[in-house]
Amino acid sequence: MLTYSYSGRGSESLYEYLYTCIKHDILTGVLAPHTKLPSKRVFAANQGISIVTVENTYGQLMAEGYIYSRPKSGFYVSAIAGQIPENAQSSDLIPARQEHPAESSYNLVSNHTSAEHFPFSIWAKIIRQLLSTQDAKLLISPPPGGAMELRSAIASHLYNFRGITCEPEQIIIGAGTEYLYTLIVQLLGREKVYGLENPSSKKIRRIYQAAGAKVIPLSMDGEGIELTAENLAVPDIVQISPSHHFPTGIVTSVSRRYGLLQWASESPGRYIIEDDYDSEFRLQGRPIPSLFSMDATDRVIYFNTFTKSLASTIRISYMVLPKPLLEIFYSKLGFYSCTVSNFEQYTLAAFIREEYFEKHINRMRNHYRMLRDALIRQILDSALYPGAEISEENAGLHFLLKLRTREPDAVLKEKALKNGVTVSFLSDYYSSDYRQLKTSYEHTAIINYSALSEEDMVQVVQALCSAWFPCLA
Amino acid sequence: MLTYSYSGRGSESLYEYLYTCIKHDILTGVLAPHTKLPSKRVFAANQGISIVTVENTYGQLMAEGYIYSRPKSGFYVSAIAGQIPENAQSSDLIPARQEHPAESSYNLVSNHTSAEHFPFSIWAKIIRQLLSTQDAKLLISPPPGGAMELRSAIASHLYNFRGITCEPEQIIIGAGTEYLYTLIVQLLGREKVYGLENPSSKKIRRIYQAAGAKVIPLSMDGEGIELTAENLAVPDIVQISPSHHFPTGIVTSVSRRYGLLQWASESPGRYIIEDDYDSEFRLQGRPIPSLFSMDATDRVIYFNTFTKSLASTIRISYMVLPKPLLEIFYSKLGFYSCTVSNFEQYTLAAFIREEYFEKHINRMRNHYRMLRDALIRQILDSALYPGAEISEENAGLHFLLKLRTREPDAVLKEKALKNGVTVSFLSDYYSSDYRQLKTSYEHTAIINYSALSEEDMVQVVQALCSAWFPCLA
Repeated sequence: MLTYSYSGRGSESLYEYLYTCIKHDILTGVLAPHTKLPSKRVFAANQGISIVTVENTYGQLMAEGYIYSRPKSGFYVSAIAGQIPENAQSSDLIPARQEHPAESSYNLVSNHTSAEHFPFSIWAKIIRQLLSTQDAKLLISPPPGGAMELRSAIASHLYNFRGITCEPEQIIIGAGTEYLYTLIVQLLGREKVYGLENPSSKKIRRIYQAAGAKVIPLSMDGEGIELTAENLAVPDIVQISPSHHFPTGIVTSVSRRYGLLQWASESPGRYIIEDDYDSEFRLQGRPIPSLFSMDATDRVIYFNTFTKSLASTIRISYMVLPKPLLEIFYSKLGFYSCTVSNFEQYTLAAFIREEYFEKHINRMRNHYRMLRDALIRQILDSALYPGAEISEENAGLHFLLKLRTREPDAVLKEKALKNGVTVSFLSDYYSSDYRQLKTSYEHTAIINYSALSEEDMVQVVQALCSAWFPCLA
Repeated sequence: MLTYSYSGRGSESLYEYLYTCIKHDILTGVLAPHTKLPSKRVFAANQGISIVTVENTYGQLMAEGYIYSRPKSGFYVSAIAGQIPENAQSSDLIPARQEHPAESSYNLVSNHTSAEHFPFSIWAKIIRQLLSTQDAKLLISPPPGGAMELRSAIASHLYNFRGITCEPEQIIIGAGTEYLYTLIVQLLGREKVYGLENPSSKKIRRIYQAAGAKVIPLSMDGEGIELTAENLAVPDIVQISPSHHFPTGIVTSVSRRYGLLQWASESPGRYIIEDDYDSEFRLQGRPIPSLFSMDATDRVIYFNTFTKSLASTIRISYMVLPKPLLEIFYSKLGFYSCTVSNFEQYTLAAFIREEYFEKHINRMRNHYRMLRDALIRQILDSALYPGAEISEENAGLHFLLKLRTREPDAVLKEKALKNGVTVSFLSDYYSSDYRQLKTSYEHTAIINYSALSEEDMVQVVQALCSAWFPCLA
């Protein structure tokens, strides 16, 4: 049983100390690759510390790629390439942070911008110029909706690239979409019923619920949300991602869009929240007009975020409110300070204004297209084909891979994991209070390739082949 | 006659040494409640030290509630409601939230860091170094509580400067105190009753109400919240700023602190939220121990913010949760992403770790002390004196100016505004559903001088003289 004495702890926190101990043992080979670590509960009890401390330690080690997890199994030591010899100086143990943990661990679930693709030098140049002005505006609290410079830059970006006409005042900046959802609930009312696409990300449901709102799932078919009485009689607010639904990739058809706009216009207090979260990465064909730009009755609230298009660790999102809601926003919620730091608001404003954002998006779109093509090529050349079918590959950063198999999704997922690939399935995203799974959604893996490098492709497909080929019909 | 030998003094200053000796004797009962202390003059002569040293010592003991004064009589030992652990240290306060003032030449309402006092070049240097590493950690989403590097830096800062012992895991980083309050309501429950000091900033009330929580006002006297059944029977959570109440500047006495801790310990689910928002800027005497550090039963949640100590446009605040709440936080709210950008979290972490934060605080404290002294000097030299009386000038960034007048506060405010000065009055901060204004709070202007320059002083005092002199009795 893994045990560390606290005698060498010094002034470090428990968390730092344990982190350093375990990392040291991994790097020196004391803990061999794929060794199972004790469960959090057992380890906490053994060390006489809280589970939260162990959770944080394991979490940090996982974020840095020293260990990996398998659901319902536990934590394992990663196979780190080039381990440090036993007699290495402790200074050598400073986190050799890896973008991709170990060779045995590929993540096809999360979006991730890798360090080599973030425009560090341009960002650094802009913020250096900005800070060197020591401009008083940087220390003056912006309006609750955010710095006007950033809101103006976003307004022209939306006009040029999304066909959206709005005044900068209609744009509300916030520290991440999650935060803006909690504002929406305060703006529209927590007594209202919020209809969410089913399937959808579990996080959105949890945010609405944590904010105290009632949430119901809305059934979908291949064209988007179904315009049935069952779906639309109850909710006051409908939240959708019409340009690119997560996880199915479905694009809401134009007739459905008009149907939804009609529904909203029929009764006061009805609103549609349009989450356009990765519309920048439509890889093929023309962008699809936003609901916001089709709306003539001020019932659509548009959402988008830079956490997807720039980096998930830059917490800047925004919403565009229809004008009549703007006065309500200012009178009800105008007391809130904007949650994003001025330095980053002004940096991002210059980044957009000086066309770096457009260039970045173009570069990333090409990069993702290249990744997607390489991965699809590998799959088509592999033993998986034709037992597996690819769809919805033209938008966003993932595609669907439907397997011809009778194995349940849980088994397929476990097999992939045993081969070092973390992957989710459509069935993971259905609301548990609405379990009418359509057959067409079974055995469908969601392949998010944004975190992979080109070199990873061969290994990923080989791993998936080993995992799934024996299961294919 | 109270006499202390200097043999045990060590490296402490005379002032600190005497403070510690007298506090020790009060806590251990050597000095019984209501014992009269020697007069400052006699005590100074007896100890062979200056009267100023004794003044400072008595002043600090009084600010912390260990002793009290009776006009024209002298200083007496307070009746402390319990025994303080020998190692107790540190203190706390609440975010002074201001309403947006009208346009005027001089603003005596809002806190503001002027551009010439923000450490632009150091901040720029750190962020440039950080971005030049292009370190992968910058693009890896931190745990929901924030980047461990920043949380560790804050934990050692709290230990060194506030006497607070906590693990980095207990610290939760958020984009501003306002955001963290909305998390608190989600964590503790919006069905709970939140008791807020009356008076207090209107913004705090609005945030709790917007988050769906029930809020009640708690009556105060000169020692802080009154420990009456009327105040304490109803609320589940009490939020206070014991180190420096906004707007009155009251420091909660030690016996009240123990009374509140006792109240919290009497029933499960009771918590005290301690907002320490400007404890860094205590201009005279030692900081006052925090409730968090006095708490033995895990019922105090500590809040502080860099929006006051660095710049209001840097949106980084934090709370320290007691360990038992931590697991609840992670299971209920662990799905939220941290709302602060990684770039700023890592920049601030280095800023604290490399002791720039400490230096900045020291520089700003000197600057504010200089501003305060200059403004008070101007007032004492003006026609306002002796028709106006200054109090609570030793903590935070404002003092009170009580006017001998019969004009209502609204008229006084209007007259100041006509002369180009925006100023608020104590009466502005009382909850409207609790209008039992104590007479002592009338005609009392709140003078926040943080946004003024030294050159402004003459104009401000001239303007206030023109506005108010004709009204003085």
